[in-house]
Amino acid sequence: MALLRKFPGLDLRIWARREVSARQAARYLREQSSGAGCLGTTSLARAVKGAEMVVFCVPIGAMGGLARQIKPHLSPDAACTDVGSVKGRVVTEMEKILGGRFVGAHPMAGSERSGLAAAQPDLYSEATCIITPTERTFAEALEAVALLWWQVGCWVIFSSAGDHDEAVARVSHLPHLLSSLLVNQTLEAQRGWEAFAGSGFRDATRLAGGPEAMWAEILRSNRAEVLAALEEFSRQIDVARRALRAPTEVPLRSLLASARDHRQNLYS
Amino acid sequence: MALLRKFPGLDLRIWARREVSARQAARYLREQSSGAGCLGTTSLARAVKGAEMVVFCVPIGAMGGLARQIKPHLSPDAACTDVGSVKGRVVTEMEKILGGRFVGAHPMAGSERSGLAAAQPDLYSEATCIITPTERTFAEALEAVALLWWQVGCWVIFSSAGDHDEAVARVSHLPHLLSSLLVNQTLEAQRGWEAFAGSGFRDATRLAGGPEAMWAEILRSNRAEVLAALEEFSRQIDVARRALRAPTEVPLRSLLASARDHRQNLYS
Repeated sequence: MALLRKFPGLDLRIWARREVSARQAARYLREQSSGAGCLGTTSLARAVKGAEMVVFCVPIGAMGGLARQIKPHLSPDAACTDVGSVKGRVVTEMEKILGGRFVGAHPMAGSERSGLAAAQPDLYSEATCIITPTERTFAEALEAVALLWWQVGCWVIFSSAGDHDEAVARVSHLPHLLSSLLVNQTLEAQRGWEAFAGSGFRDATRLAGGPEAMWAEILRSNRAEVLAALEEFSRQIDVARRALRAPTEVPLRSLLASARDHRQNLYS
Repeated sequence: MALLRKFPGLDLRIWARREVSARQAARYLREQSSGAGCLGTTSLARAVKGAEMVVFCVPIGAMGGLARQIKPHLSPDAACTDVGSVKGRVVTEMEKILGGRFVGAHPMAGSERSGLAAAQPDLYSEATCIITPTERTFAEALEAVALLWWQVGCWVIFSSAGDHDEAVARVSHLPHLLSSLLVNQTLEAQRGWEAFAGSGFRDATRLAGGPEAMWAEILRSNRAEVLAALEEFSRQIDVARRALRAPTEVPLRSLLASARDHRQNLYS
């Protein structure tokens, strides 16, 4: 959607595992694109043959198998990228199969909703997209992939896969987990606490609405960093406990003020 | 604002501690209300004299002192209520001073913004308002206070002050604290993790943007319940740790699925 809005005549092919999804994609492309080569298909060979760019938008665990299948059908100069939320494992695996033409990417966009019905043409507008090249990455592939994300409206930043995984464990994976734990704590107690929930609880638990299969895979693929982040968070909880028990309001106030200031700097 | 939209001719008096705020309120009332008795003032006596209803919208720690000052000026049949986020301590203190005419209330509305500039006439629309009567509460006062919140658009529910404090510790105070801890963890590390923050982090930390003085007072006024909620949350973190380390994806997936289902039931 985002690409077609920018390039209405683009030849876009969408592969889907299920026939019904491929047909849905084909119908969408027929209505929205003037490109003669558009295609919705369940055939990997037809989808990638002659393509300049291949984007893997599938679960992390499915990427390697698909990469092996499409490899014989790829043009020699085709660039490949993905949208996975974890990069270390993905980049290592995909580079082994596809070589320097693969460039890892993680557009930090989306919501707790999933599926075609949740698609929006402006999803990537103003979003951050992290691109994780390695020493093996081809310069042409890197440029093509960075350009792709920039053209759909992203702020592109470069990072190593390791730094990426360390950071998203803290700003994405941990918040997701905390959000789920908050819901479970409140509702498992069966004390009717949820009747008291206001807009704060709704926002604080929005992430918990995400699809569990995808998130279980993401969290486990980045297990070491997520466990480290949980460890750090437990220490933060100890700080909060001490501040609540302190004889004066000062430590608690300074904890809250620090968070408010930090956040304000981030989003001002 | 909410009351004037419903009753444009209402005689509304606003007391403020500072002269500049009282003048600002007076100006607002002059422009928006046709009530002849409207007033913005720093005089407590003038504000409450002859009033049918007095609403305390001040920090929890300031309520008792103000209640003592206005008591001699109150009409015998005036009902009193408040908007404090903690009820046990407030109800005990205020009932001691004002007797059965005081009815505790907590409209669960608001945002991380504060001050007159953040005021909105539809803030209370569809919000939950918890009202906490006791055995001493006068029936007329209870009815008047429930009607007040219902008329500005709230869903009114009744609860004991103790049950209220137990519940909001879990659905409001704990989420606020977790949100602040998440910001502090991310930014104290000084690893540049915040550059990777997307819309998920923004939502998960929205509460941390609230005014620290108000929140430090709320959290400490409900300290026992907040500490209990933190304790429960630490046990949730242990559950997550074990799920992440499990040999299969099943425990993590079921933890996430449970949260998603619970939340969906809550907001469907």
